[in-house]
Amino acid sequence: MTDKRVYNFSAGPSMLPVEVLEEARDEMLNYKGSGMSVMEMSHRSSTYQAIFDETKATLKRLLNIPDNYKILFLHGGATQQFGTLALNLLQKGRADYVVTGNFSKKAAQEAAKFGDVHIAYDGKDNNYTHIPTQDELDIRDDIDYVHICQNNTIFGTEWNYVPDTKGAPLVADMSSDFLSRPVDVTKYGLIYAGAQKNVGIAGLGIVIIREDLVKPHRPDIQVLSEYDTMIKKDSMYNTPPAYAIYVAGLVMKWIENQGGLEAMEKRNIKKAKLLQDYLDQSDFYNYPTEKGSRSNMNVAFTTPNKDLDAKFVKESIEAGMTNLKGHRLVGGIRASIYNAMPYEGVEYLVNFMKKFAEENK
Amino acid sequence: MTDKRVYNFSAGPSMLPVEVLEEARDEMLNYKGSGMSVMEMSHRSSTYQAIFDETKATLKRLLNIPDNYKILFLHGGATQQFGTLALNLLQKGRADYVVTGNFSKKAAQEAAKFGDVHIAYDGKDNNYTHIPTQDELDIRDDIDYVHICQNNTIFGTEWNYVPDTKGAPLVADMSSDFLSRPVDVTKYGLIYAGAQKNVGIAGLGIVIIREDLVKPHRPDIQVLSEYDTMIKKDSMYNTPPAYAIYVAGLVMKWIENQGGLEAMEKRNIKKAKLLQDYLDQSDFYNYPTEKGSRSNMNVAFTTPNKDLDAKFVKESIEAGMTNLKGHRLVGGIRASIYNAMPYEGVEYLVNFMKKFAEENK
Repeated sequence: MTDKRVYNFSAGPSMLPVEVLEEARDEMLNYKGSGMSVMEMSHRSSTYQAIFDETKATLKRLLNIPDNYKILFLHGGATQQFGTLALNLLQKGRADYVVTGNFSKKAAQEAAKFGDVHIAYDGKDNNYTHIPTQDELDIRDDIDYVHICQNNTIFGTEWNYVPDTKGAPLVADMSSDFLSRPVDVTKYGLIYAGAQKNVGIAGLGIVIIREDLVKPHRPDIQVLSEYDTMIKKDSMYNTPPAYAIYVAGLVMKWIENQGGLEAMEKRNIKKAKLLQDYLDQSDFYNYPTEKGSRSNMNVAFTTPNKDLDAKFVKESIEAGMTNLKGHRLVGGIRASIYNAMPYEGVEYLVNFMKKFAEENK
Repeated sequence: MTDKRVYNFSAGPSMLPVEVLEEARDEMLNYKGSGMSVMEMSHRSSTYQAIFDETKATLKRLLNIPDNYKILFLHGGATQQFGTLALNLLQKGRADYVVTGNFSKKAAQEAAKFGDVHIAYDGKDNNYTHIPTQDELDIRDDIDYVHICQNNTIFGTEWNYVPDTKGAPLVADMSSDFLSRPVDVTKYGLIYAGAQKNVGIAGLGIVIIREDLVKPHRPDIQVLSEYDTMIKKDSMYNTPPAYAIYVAGLVMKWIENQGGLEAMEKRNIKKAKLLQDYLDQSDFYNYPTEKGSRSNMNVAFTTPNKDLDAKFVKESIEAGMTNLKGHRLVGGIRASIYNAMPYEGVEYLVNFMKKFAEENK
């Protein structure tokens, strides 16, 4: 066994800050003199309640969440919310979905089980390399909400503006750019994110919902899918994913210590630009994502052919980098460079890419 | 901060074996030379897949699960399954529930949203101190299943026999005695358990289902509630609660190293007997749970009055024990003595109880 950590470019679960892992490690057998691990704590104990409350308060500070928004820590990640949000928000029974990739498509399919779902835009013709402009969106009148996926991990695109929804609440899956940059929460009706990209352990879904959108639940849905019940119980109708919430709190504190979301954004732009600028000037690599639609979290590109893609992945592993293989739906290479990826990691990747291009052109 | 760990009598989340916590701690920054924490691993990576497969294989060995049963690792704990199992198993639309405590009541209420639920027995008249005999069960004909909660954490009762269900599949919530003793899986149609009592981190629900009970899912349920889909995807339709599965695997290995479920049962009986025998001969403490219905996992008792209950809890904390306060529904004292509680912990508690009785009688 070696002590050396790798540069982990996984799209999720993904790299965590070393400082966070060290803290979790150091507190594993005895959290701050409590005589037990956070894993072992009753979620009804005052020690755990303090962890929970502080995590919520830190998130509120980081995102500057107004008082008329509720914060939920739920089981199941973002996918669980695909249906849950539809079951709660569909009052008229109509919603519009903007399909910019795999997860927005899945979200739309799940919602279509429970209501009249209209696809306001589908990027399949451009292979999801483009985020639609306002003019390209076909949003209906008299709908319950418009749904977008703000960052598309597989295709490496990201919304760089907040669309006008003609008055309907905007619902955004922010799983893969959550806490990577400041967001004006007031422009959204509901924000949700799985934790396993920028906030830690898989299994936790974070939901931020404007309180006027919380209605009495339908009688025919599962209790953990009832937003009103979960708000009333402050996410603890049953035992919450308590350890994942603790780790999320450590990550949020780390972000705060780095200078908050403004600082994270600067750092993330600097990292992404290093890689994107190199790709744009390269005549070896192909980076098809349209300018203006590009994600600062996931960068998807290819070498001249599939054999070289495979060789690239193989040699990148030998060089101490992991998970650079593109998603099975698209192939190629993908570098996920979330908050926890240091600048040095991207620099290391770019230097490897230069050498690889030199050797294989 | 002190290094001293406490004896944690929490009903869940609850004590974990120190060896498991040490292993999780030591692997926190670098799992077996992979260069990353298990928290950071792509659930599609071969390293994580090996952890997942090994956890499943260990569970299969421990419980001697036959090949015609499927094992699922799902989000949300046992409560998520209350509705999920009803939505999947209700084909005729009728199920019978045996109510022996708070969680079986909740499970019945949740299922009643989705079908015709009959209460085959309700222990409320005896304050849930009694597990019904076969003769006391009013089980209907032509039903989809009979549901029991095999161990009742709040009231400290446990089924010490497997009821005859007149041919209907038996569904058992084993959350609080899962892996505490051998179980004949073939007598059950579906077994489920939240992980946070005997198997680790909250957020994970383990489901063991006989394959003939898995039917094509209803079109109007959330995708993560579809047993057929989750089986097809081997619990990975979305990112599973990957770290909780890893910790569950460590705990299962620990149980195997202790000698398996036969050894756990012997140990658990020895621990429970020490406490129960002392309670039975005491003229200070009251232990109302009926003989034959008693749990080896949770022992609920009272002192002569509520003031002394409160004093007991307060002084037990000062003596280095935590979470001995009874559930808010019943008050009094409750000692949860799951697999990870050492014999010395129960011995320490009994000695404290003797001293407390002496000082306060």
